[in-house]
Order: sequence, then structure tokens, then C-alpha cells
Amino acid sequence: MPSQENIADLLISCPEKPGIISTVSNFLLEHDANIIHFDQNTTDPSAGMLFMRISFELKDIDSAYGQLEEDLNTMAKDYAMDWQLNSKKKRKRMAIFVSKEGHCLKELLLRWESGEIPVDIPMVISNHDDLRDEVERYGIPYYHIPLNHGTKAQAEEKALELMKGNVDFIVLARYMQILTPEFVSIYPNQIINIHHSFLPAFVGANPYVKAFNRGVKLIGATAHYVTDDLDEGPIIEQDVTRVNHRSTAEDLKISGRHVEKQVLATAVSWHVENKVLVHGNKTILFT
Amino acid sequence: MPSQENIADLLISCPEKPGIISTVSNFLLEHDANIIHFDQNTTDPSAGMLFMRISFELKDIDSAYGQLEEDLNTMAKDYAMDWQLNSKKKRKRMAIFVSKEGHCLKELLLRWESGEIPVDIPMVISNHDDLRDEVERYGIPYYHIPLNHGTKAQAEEKALELMKGNVDFIVLARYMQILTPEFVSIYPNQIINIHHSFLPAFVGANPYVKAFNRGVKLIGATAHYVTDDLDEGPIIEQDVTRVNHRSTAEDLKISGRHVEKQVLATAVSWHVENKVLVHGNKTILFT
Amino acid sequence: MPSQENIADLLISCPEKPGIISTVSNFLLEHDANIIHFDQNTTDPSAGMLFMRISFELKDIDSAYGQLEEDLNTMAKDYAMDWQLNSKKKRKRMAIFVSKEGHCLKELLLRWESGEIPVDIPMVISNHDDLRDEVERYGIPYYHIPLNHGTKAQAEEKALELMKGNVDFIVLARYMQILTPEFVSIYPNQIINIHHSFLPAFVGANPYVKAFNRGVKLIGATAHYVTDDLDEGPIIEQDVTRVNHRSTAEDLKISGRHVEKQVLATAVSWHVENKVLVHGNKTILFT
Amino acid sequence: MPSQENIADLLISCPEKPGIISTVSNFLLEHDANIIHFDQNTTDPSAGMLFMRISFELKDIDSAYGQLEEDLNTMAKDYAMDWQLNSKKKRKRMAIFVSKEGHCLKELLLRWESGEIPVDIPMVISNHDDLRDEVERYGIPYYHIPLNHGTKAQAEEKALELMKGNVDFIVLARYMQILTPEFVSIYPNQIINIHHSFLPAFVGANPYVKAFNRGVKLIGATAHYVTDDLDEGPIIEQDVTRVNHRSTAEDLKISGRHVEKQVLATAVSWHVENKVLVHGNKTILFT
Repeated sequence: MPSQENIADLLISCPEKPGIISTVSNFLLEHDANIIHFDQNTTDPSAGMLFMRISFELKDIDSAYGQLEEDLNTMAKDYAMDWQLNSKKKRKRMAIFVSKEGHCLKELLLRWESGEIPVDIPMVISNHDDLRDEVERYGIPYYHIPLNHGTKAQAEEKALELMKGNVDFIVLARYMQILTPEFVSIYPNQIINIHHSFLPAFVGANPYVKAFNRGVKLIGATAHYVTDDLDEGPIIEQDVTRVNHRSTAEDLKISGRHVEKQVLATAVSWHVENKVLVHGNKTILFT
Repeated sequence: MPSQENIADLLISCPEKPGIISTVSNFLLEHDANIIHFDQNTTDPSAGMLFMRISFELKDIDSAYGQLEEDLNTMAKDYAMDWQLNSKKKRKRMAIFVSKEGHCLKELLLRWESGEIPVDIPMVISNHDDLRDEVERYGIPYYHIPLNHGTKAQAEEKALELMKGNVDFIVLARYMQILTPEFVSIYPNQIINIHHSFLPAFVGANPYVKAFNRGVKLIGATAHYVTDDLDEGPIIEQDVTRVNHRSTAEDLKISGRHVEKQVLATAVSWHVENKVLVHGNKTILFT
Repeated sequence: MPSQENIADLLISCPEKPGIISTVSNFLLEHDANIIHFDQNTTDPSAGMLFMRISFELKDIDSAYGQLEEDLNTMAKDYAMDWQLNSKKKRKRMAIFVSKEGHCLKELLLRWESGEIPVDIPMVISNHDDLRDEVERYGIPYYHIPLNHGTKAQAEEKALELMKGNVDFIVLARYMQILTPEFVSIYPNQIINIHHSFLPAFVGANPYVKAFNRGVKLIGATAHYVTDDLDEGPIIEQDVTRVNHRSTAEDLKISGRHVEKQVLATAVSWHVENKVLVHGNKTILFT
Repeated sequence: MPSQENIADLLISCPEKPGIISTVSNFLLEHDANIIHFDQNTTDPSAGMLFMRISFELKDIDSAYGQLEEDLNTMAKDYAMDWQLNSKKKRKRMAIFVSKEGHCLKELLLRWESGEIPVDIPMVISNHDDLRDEVERYGIPYYHIPLNHGTKAQAEEKALELMKGNVDFIVLARYMQILTPEFVSIYPNQIINIHHSFLPAFVGANPYVKAFNRGVKLIGATAHYVTDDLDEGPIIEQDVTRVNHRSTAEDLKISGRHVEKQVLATAVSWHVENKVLVHGNKTILFT
């Protein structure tokens, strides 16, 4: 397989128009890009939206990058394209927000440490100080920003300041606070949350207690982008695990943890590998 | 393994009290029953509810049955027991209610034909005539009872008359009508419905359209006992299948069919094999 | 979505060479084809094999078809391409081979009847007469070709004669006979078998007994293309289901049936929808 | 639910004989034990083996323990019973053996730290020094015992010495060495290994490369007790995860890691909670 050094991913969304695929593949050929994966989808080939993900290899990608972006802009105008170009050389920077429960955080750190999730983690931010040691032993800065009902605005201000210019996306790894619309608007489709239920079942707080009371036979977890509508953002990944009538609400919580960490880590991997496009309230996954 | 002929299942629910398990096992020993499986559960060993399922073999079970029931009644009084005794020789009798979609019905018929679900099917009842051939070729009577808003009471009356003395439990195999509380009260915890979603997500009508609009990554099905609260009865079994962003609402419906028929058939099997106890709004499964 | 009438799927395998994707997309644009899905893969973008599946819409596809094929041939020569073009209008013709067990056959017939698998079934061939009624009630011809050790060659001869010109691919829906290399060579990668184990575990006969004896916790099924190496052909789909220590070998067989029919039906769907490419002893799936 | 302090689990295997369940439940009643769960199984109720797991609560269990064991011994003689009695107060002591890969070790440590696996870990033993920091930060002793072909006997000797009187069972958390029959005989059915394949598929070394070459669609992991027959011991738990044709052998390895750690941690939980009985080459699970 090609060296990871010279690989980039191009994501495109645009209205359908005849010849787009030719145009894009010719564009890449003219720039000497060698296509590795080309995936395309449409909601309706005559009048819908078209989504593409193209991985390509380009020798000396660094020196070519500026021109490539410029030419993409020109092409994008003709086709009303939204596009993102991500070079594997330039890793995404992820901030992790946590409260007190560490299982999701730890799974992300393990997969980051092993190289499985190729991302940089410039900081972890928490409204509690509990998980500091867990984070600092990896050499990652840990910022404790305490929070109460009156101080949410200032706390978010402080977090935004720390992240400014250093963070591309945020993962809420069991962060038990609701973000303000102002905060969310600064990172549109760049905040990933893990909800500890199979949404839309058991929205809101205490899903395991609700699941226990309802007597469900499977419990689940949902990773989604955060929007202003609580628990209503575009779903990236979901999974479930089987429970039984012997399980207490506490057992559901423990079983749930393993699904949560797995689902969140998968969603983060896909986001990092540029495999997720958002359209309206849904995701298109190139997996 | 023992001959199926002389096997019976005893299901017991009662408040916890010291010595119950001894009492029950001694009772069976005195009646010369040979225990095959003994499963017991409790919500709280000092003050909760106790649930038991015991499979046993008893030579000449037919001649012993009457005395066994009488003695069970005596024991039950001392311990405030609810109990059911089911001999494998006496098959349960299942009525199937359908509307127009036949996939769940067909799966039940196949598993019945192969002997996998050891049940008798004295009749299929439908508000449409579409599935008559499918049913009659197995030699099973098919009753078409048309139905409109004004005639529901009469239609249910007619069905009850047909079933009287002939039917132990009812399976709603995609029967698209809501039963009246009067009807439900006649077969308490003896009506099994298949809901085409992973309840409590997407209660009510058109769950696949709702699931499509929400962009979920898994769709599911739920088999539950019918109560007066629509889609709120005790859950017997649930399962899910993975879908993707390419799936149309129609595709979800097709994928869903296979989960529905599998989940319903499993729930019916367990009911037939006396593996389900209902306590409040939950099921205890001896599986 | 576009009318299914004018849709075709183009499958291409060829050695990697710069510009192939441009060439193919330009080719389709010149022929006024409107691309719906474009999926491409490579084993190595500089020196490997490239695989493509393109679904496209073409007005008046019937009149354009001949020219399209001719031009594809020309393009194929330049790039050493293997290609298949399949119009949705021209349904594939599937022969089903069975022995005595009908569960896989019935699942295929149900999915065919509901339109879920868009295929024609010109005949079912069996070495037993048991399943005749099941097949004939759908109006599908059933041919009973008895078979013993001495008559395999003649039996295959007879089957080949019946199928000649009428059958595109064969499904062995629990056909308990090994085909001769001569027979297999006539339908290369066009014979789908269901093996009742999670291959390569439990190759050969009686996999459920072997699984029972080994005490596995999951049993599975494998759909694969038939080659001369028994149970070694390219795997199309696999799945598993959970069993437990209470399961007898007979229970495993029953649980297995449901996995078998599901896995085989899925594999057949993908084959019919032109979503499977074979390369060496592996399949590339465009699902 | 009852306090965990006074709970014990009794596991019994014995040949079937009428009245055993009465005898055991009367025995517990006479000792003032309050039964929480009573699960029983048989291979054949007239002439097979019977397996029981009984959880019970006993006030002042510490002072009663000695007499209970003595009386169990007496009862056991009459019925040729094998039995184990495990008080929740007396935690099992688990040694973990590792080589260089840490994912299974880390999962076990996380579940131990969170209290999910109620076990003591007196030591980790390794033939490499790589994972020392990971272990010591939890305050667990880490012993590096280097190993080469000539020194296996001495290395095992050293390990046995360290464990003597301190260790109840051993977990091979990706320990890449084959233990000698002498070593295995000292811990019969007390050594749990994780094999990185869905056994019996891909026995031996490099299962992911073999799985890649065979083109399987699911990869798995198997936790089993170690016997002298390599990869042939009683299976405790198995699970699988889906892979696709885009996956490289390296990708399979990464996906496999998550199944491995989950399967091993589940098997260890069950072992610690006395939910596993071994009979011949199979396990009976009370889960």
C-alpha cells in the first residue's frame, strides 16, 4: 500500500448535475493524483444531492497543496460544491471533554496511544479534577474548569479561549453538561457526543433507569453530532448489547459502558478518517 | 434424553419466604417426579418475589395429573403461589391474527410445520381475505372477519365466539388493528404482538418512516404481550439489524421484515415452551 | 429515485493504471449515462488490481445497449479490463438445487415472491421428489433427477441439458451432493453454496455434530462460490448465532437453519444485484 | 438486594440420582441459608450428569463456614459430588501473564479498577519488560522473567514459586508462550487463555493472516481453559466482529483486539463469579 505520507481525502457535497464525476476525476488526474478509493452516493441522480469521498495519493503533496486548494475553489463555484480536503500529514486536533466517568476517555486514549486513531490531543477539559492523573501520564494537558449554574457562560468562554487555534473538533466523552447554542455554533458538526441509550429511545437523563423500568432486552449507545436540539443531532454510529431480567439498573449501566466506549471510539475514528458527511439531520458514512 | 411424552413444566411466582425451594423440590420428589431443569430467580431474597421454572419427567403423567394439580393447589395456598402446570402432551392452541402482510405468518407456519414450534393452530383470523390460500394449504381454517370503524365490537365478538374453548393464546402477526380493552381482558398476558420497531423508540404507526427520518443506524423489532396501553406491554424479545445511509424507507421496511419474523417466532417459541413469566410490566425469561 | 427500468450496473476489474477512473467516467458521460453509485477499490493504487461498480441510468437503454457493449469492448482492450454489464430490465435466471431439507429453498421463494430478490427462477432441480409441491405451487417447474454413486455423471448431464440457455447461475440450497469439476467449470463463480458452518471451522460433513462436540458458543453459516476445492471457494457472506450448553446437537441444527437461510438469501441478493466481484479466492463486495 | 458480604456460591457436579435437588435444598435450609439463585442442568435426567449453581445468603457466614464445608463433604460422599464453595468475602486471586501486547491486560486492569471484576491481582508476570509501567502504576507487582528456548523450565519454575500460595487462577492475556504439561497440571481448569480467532478456525499462530488469506467476513476471538492440547481446551466464551474486503491483515488485527479484550474480560468475569463448570471438554455456563 502507498506511504501514508502523501495521501489526502477529498469530501464533496453538491447538487446533482450531469458530468460531475467526470469533472472531479479529470481534475484529480490533471493534478497527478492517484486515486485509491472513490465512493459516491446520491439521494436522487436527476435532482438530488451528490456526496463523494475520494482518497488519493499525490507525490510532494505539500508543495502541491496550495494550488490544489485554489483550483478546488474554482471548480466548487461552478458546481455549488461544499468540499473539505484533508491531508493525512496534517492530523486533526481533538479536545476531549469529560466529567467524572472515565471509561470513554480511557478507550480514546488507548486507541490514540496505539496509533489506531491517528489524531492529536492538545487538551482534555473537565468540570471536575478526578481524571487529571489518567490524562497527564500521557503528557496531555488537563484543564479543570469548575462549573455551576451561574458560571456556565464563563466556563465555556474559558474553554473556547484554550481551544482557539488549537482544536479542530471536540469529543464529549460522557461530559454531563449541556452546551449553550453559542458554543455549539462555533463548532458546527464538529462536536461528537455519546448518548448512553439507543436513541431515540430514552432521550434525556438516566437512560439506564428508564431502560430497566421498561424491561428492554437490549440496551444501546448512540454517537451523534451535537446540535441545539438535545439528543437530536445527526447520528454517526449506534450499537446494542443484550441484557436480561436478572440485570439490575446498575448492571445495565456496567454493560452499557462497554457499548458506549466502543461506539464513541468508532465514531471518532470515522470522523478522523474523513468518512462522515452531514446532510440535514443525517450522516452519510463512507465506511 | 427422556421421552417428551411424560414431561411437564411447572411455573411458579410467589412472595419470598424461607424454605420455598425445599418445599417445592420435596413436593416433586414425593410425587416421583424426576427434575430435568430447575431455574429460580428472585427480585430480593428476603422480601421480594420468587420465580421458578421446573421441567420434570413423570411416568404415567396422565393418571397422576389430577392429583398433582390438587396437591399443587394446597401447597399454593400456604405460599400465596401463582402456578401453571403444562404437560408437553397437551399442546397449547394458538390463534394467529393477520391483516395483509404475510411474512410473520409464514415464518410461524414454517416453524410449526417443521415441528420446531410444538403448538396446535386451530385457526387464523383476518380482517382481509388475502392470505387465505397461504393458510388453507396447511389444512388450517381461515376466517375472514371484515372490519370497519363502526363494526369493531361485532368483529371482536365474532372472533371470540370462534375461539371460545379452542384457543389458549393469540399471536398478532402484523395485525394492523388495535384490540379493545374488553377483548384484551379475556386473554391477559396471552396475546403476543410484534411491533416493527425497537421499542420504546418509534411507538405508534409508521416506525420505518420515523426511523428513516431520524437517520438511525440500526432498526429493530419488539415482541410483547398486549395490554391496554398501546405498545407498552411486557417485552418478551427484541432484536436489531444494521442499515445504512443508502437505505430508503422502503429498504428499512424490507430489512425490518426479517427481524420481525425472527423476533416474533422466538417469542412464540418461548411462550409455547413455558419459558416466560410476567411480573408487573416485565417478563422473566427462563431461556 | 429513478425508474428501475433504465438502470444498469457495470462491474470492472483491471490492473491499476493512471487515469482509469477518468476514462470510465468520461466514457459514461459520452454515452449520456447518469451515474447513481460509483464505488471503486484497489489492492494497491500503484501496482495492484482495481475494482469498480457503477450503477447508472440511461434513457432508452435498450436501443443504446449494443453500442455501449461494443465501446466497452474497445475500452477494455486498452486497460486489460474484465467487465460485466447488467441491465435491470434483463433479470438474471437462477436455478435452485435442493435435496430434502427445504428451509433455504423456502426463504428464497418467499423473497422472490415478495419482489425482494428480483430474479427469475426457471427451474428447481432435486435428487429427491420431496419438495415438489412446495415449488410447483409457485408455478415453477420442478425436476427430479435421482442420483446414486454410479449415475452422477448422467445426472449432471441431464441437469446441464435442462439449464442450457435458460440459467445464468445456480444456488445450492442445501444440495447434499458434491459437483464434479466438469460441472463446476461450466458455471465459474456462478454457483453459490451454503455451508452450514462458520468456515473454515468444521469443513466437511456434519458440522453441527462437530460444533456440538467442540462446545462452541456460536454457530454459523457461510455462503460461498463453488470451486473444485470443497468448502474452499470465495466467501460471499457469513453470520453466526449464539447457542448454549443446554443446546443439543439437534438444537444447533435448528438454530443453524435460521442463520443458513438468512446468509444464503443475502448472498443471493448481492449476486443478483451485481454487488459481488471475485478476485482470486476472495470476493469484493459493493454493499 | 442482600449485602454482598454474606453471599456464597455453591457449584456441584455429580451423576444423576433421584432426590438430589431436594437433598441439596434441604441441606441449605437446615444451615439457615437463604437461596438467591438456584440453577440446575442435566445431560440426561435418568443416567447423566447433573450440574448446579446455587447462590445463597448466610448470616455470619464466617463462623458457619467451617461446619458448612464439613457437612458438604459428608453429603458429597453419598452422591459422588464434586463441589466448590466460594464466599464473596474471600476474593479469588488472579495472576496475569503477558508478553508485549497490552490491550487485554489493560482491559482487565480497567474492569478490576472500576470494581466490575471483583478479584485480587497479586502479580503480573511477563517474559518482557515492556508493560511494567502500565502495571506498577496500579500498585501491582510486575515480574519480568526472561525466556528462551533453553530456559522455559526454569522460567516456569520461577513463576510457580512466585505464585505459590498467592494465586488461585491464571489469565494468559496474550501471553505468547506455550506452557508445559507440568505447569498446566498444577492449575487444572484454572488457566484462561484468549485465542485470537474463532476456534476451531485458524488454530495455531498468525490467525489474522490466515483469516485475511481465506477472505472471511467475520473475525473472532475465543477464551478457553488451557489443557495439554494446544487450542483445544474447554471454550468459555466466543464472539465475532464484521470485517470487509477493504481490511488489510493489519486492520483485522486491530478489529480483533477489541473482540479479544471483550471476550477475555467476559470469560474472566464469569470465572470469578463462579459461573463456569467444566465437564469433559466443555463448559457449563450459569449466566
